[in-house]
Amino acid sequence: MTARAGIVVTGTEVLTGRVADANGPWLAEALRGRGVDVGRVVVVGDRPDDLAAAVGFLAGEGGHDLVITTGGLGPTADDLTARVVAQVQGRALRLDEGLRALIDDIVRRIADERGWQGPLGDALDEGTRKQALVPDGATWLHPTGTAPGLVVPPTGAGAPVVVLPGPPGELRAMWDAVLVDPVVTSALAGAEPLEQRTLRMWGPPEAELAVVLREHGEQHSMAGLEVTTCLRGGELEVVTRYSPAAAGAYADLEATLLERFADTLVSADGRSVDEVVADALRAGGLTVATAESCTAGLLAGRFADRPGSSAYLLGGLVTYSNEAKTALLDVPAALIERVGAVSEEVALAMAAGARARLGADLGFGVTGVAGPDGGTADKPVGLVHVALVGTLPDGTAVSEHRRLRLPGDRMSVRARTVTTCLHLLRGVLTSRS
Amino acid sequence: MTARAGIVVTGTEVLTGRVADANGPWLAEALRGRGVDVGRVVVVGDRPDDLAAAVGFLAGEGGHDLVITTGGLGPTADDLTARVVAQVQGRALRLDEGLRALIDDIVRRIADERGWQGPLGDALDEGTRKQALVPDGATWLHPTGTAPGLVVPPTGAGAPVVVLPGPPGELRAMWDAVLVDPVVTSALAGAEPLEQRTLRMWGPPEAELAVVLREHGEQHSMAGLEVTTCLRGGELEVVTRYSPAAAGAYADLEATLLERFADTLVSADGRSVDEVVADALRAGGLTVATAESCTAGLLAGRFADRPGSSAYLLGGLVTYSNEAKTALLDVPAALIERVGAVSEEVALAMAAGARARLGADLGFGVTGVAGPDGGTADKPVGLVHVALVGTLPDGTAVSEHRRLRLPGDRMSVRARTVTTCLHLLRGVLTSRS
Repeated sequence: MTARAGIVVTGTEVLTGRVADANGPWLAEALRGRGVDVGRVVVVGDRPDDLAAAVGFLAGEGGHDLVITTGGLGPTADDLTARVVAQVQGRALRLDEGLRALIDDIVRRIADERGWQGPLGDALDEGTRKQALVPDGATWLHPTGTAPGLVVPPTGAGAPVVVLPGPPGELRAMWDAVLVDPVVTSALAGAEPLEQRTLRMWGPPEAELAVVLREHGEQHSMAGLEVTTCLRGGELEVVTRYSPAAAGAYADLEATLLERFADTLVSADGRSVDEVVADALRAGGLTVATAESCTAGLLAGRFADRPGSSAYLLGGLVTYSNEAKTALLDVPAALIERVGAVSEEVALAMAAGARARLGADLGFGVTGVAGPDGGTADKPVGLVHVALVGTLPDGTAVSEHRRLRLPGDRMSVRARTVTTCLHLLRGVLTSRS
Repeated sequence: MTARAGIVVTGTEVLTGRVADANGPWLAEALRGRGVDVGRVVVVGDRPDDLAAAVGFLAGEGGHDLVITTGGLGPTADDLTARVVAQVQGRALRLDEGLRALIDDIVRRIADERGWQGPLGDALDEGTRKQALVPDGATWLHPTGTAPGLVVPPTGAGAPVVVLPGPPGELRAMWDAVLVDPVVTSALAGAEPLEQRTLRMWGPPEAELAVVLREHGEQHSMAGLEVTTCLRGGELEVVTRYSPAAAGAYADLEATLLERFADTLVSADGRSVDEVVADALRAGGLTVATAESCTAGLLAGRFADRPGSSAYLLGGLVTYSNEAKTALLDVPAALIERVGAVSEEVALAMAAGARARLGADLGFGVTGVAGPDGGTADKPVGLVHVALVGTLPDGTAVSEHRRLRLPGDRMSVRARTVTTCLHLLRGVLTSRS
């Protein structure tokens, strides 16, 4: 069987989008590995009524085996999750003296380290007392910051509620303790791990994928497969979840998709284009350098996102001004004058300049109009020239250029340019393997 | 009065965190300007039962004046929002022939542009038909992609449901039409605009802010003010929402906070550190250049995030290898040999090199250990040296250095380094004004 969980994310800052929630997605993935599917995530602000309604909605209706809340466990008055969950589960709050002593130790250590003193002392004591209030009959999980977690069984029917702190590091550090809590193991008894496989493609229309999926379904069983397709920034992702019994059906589906989308496949094992490129660079012993105008460092930064990227990323140059393109990349000023900074010729010259200056095997050049200003009839916002030049291990010369016309705002144009660069490199590195 | 809205975000890819939801936050802010407070955001996967429960939860219980759904309007079978909302609101679906003709035109134009043909034709027709199904008694909103929006009144009590497409550009383009729909204007009649003010600080502990807020509340009315504090990456944000009647109470609170946190204030008008820095650079006619190792372009990229940044960002150098630091930034190889690449001396030399190579007024140097590998006892993961050198318009020489010990993983260390650089520059530019 597959168990079901609901997640409540608290915090007005998440509700209004000032902070992106990292906990819901992390918990969804951690729960999947334990055979638990997340049906709903509810985001509420720091208001008791809304929080109570959300917890009640998920814990009370019988559709969930487990409810998890994140956030609202801090020392201040607007952190009210423990109190609200106690009330929804029909339990009184009591002060746990052992827990208070434990939190007090932690808080004093932090205060000493940071040199806090004076009127802060009272506020700290009050906050500690608040954080040591535990619903009757609940167990607490050892804090990794100052906030303890809670496992709160229902008094009647309904699902147990696991109360976790909002800071992602604290929440994750507590997760192993959640999974061995007797109330949780009992709620999840019998849950089978859910498999998840991801195919990534670059380029095909989503409608074409829909046709292939429909045709496959007419000739093969797709029972037990939950297929989700997602198109973003030109990348098409096919994610399939299934319980172990449907492994054969998935193998059939995968075979169909690999055959039909061979020319646009990025990976069949869930690897992102970043990972595919990193693996290929490492396997070939190749190094890269970047020259960026409109992306201004984001391409180099994307390479460096990966641990160990110093094995292939030598460095890069951000040349925002024309003078910088000439001074740092040896792009002839006369060339810029003649064809303009946003052109195939300048992109290629930038790529060659980055490669030469850094002594890399491969060089990227990126120049474009990210907007919102600076567009003209000839060179509108969204026009980007991307170039990749260099030499492969077998001596093959590389000289690629793409003229892109990208939709969206400044951020989208720049982000999509970076992704396109990675796919250009992926094509060059993998088509010859 | 303040009206209340609930938002349903659909899509398994959002539920599992593969895609971050951009629509909920955007809608929350757009609604605030119209006097509507968002109480809850519910994220569900592409499953009819979960979607129906979520819409029913928000539309049926009486706590909301309006419910908005986003996503699930595409041509494929897993896009099922229109059908589910029709069912929850007790309405049958009917095919709107005018709408079908309109979508058909749009789809054919796209197919022609992209050269789709063959078996795709049938799939497109089927998708168009699906997208032209409208709940009885609902009105449709003109599509900006291929998916029309819907305004679906309830058959009995409960809130109307506005059904919007998932792609943020399509959703936003439809928003003005939503606000003038008679069903929506009637639901929101009498709603007063909600004010929102944001104070930003760099450095103070959240507990100190809690003390100040409590003390203020003991001596002044805070009725009608909803204060949310949020600490992230060292930045403390105080956001207050209030209806026009509470403007005086907010003025009192702001005066207290400005007095108590004068030395850590970033802005009292909601401007981010990026905006404060951009404004100060522009006012001083100053230019900047960057030299980055562990952040590898993210600092330059952050400057360039802002439209018009070419007025002050000349460019930057990403020097990942030691050789690049010497070749591109003139950092003496002997210096790196003697003190190591992650050191105050090298950060200062990098900053000076960036400034000289790009002819900028101010140069940044960033070098550190972002991890997860490469840390030693002397130079652990999270150790970063940041330097800023140059000359201000009045001739003052700048030579600043910070040794940072940052928590968290590779991404956090790099992101927080970039933010710290901006605050370092902000301090230099604004303390002298």
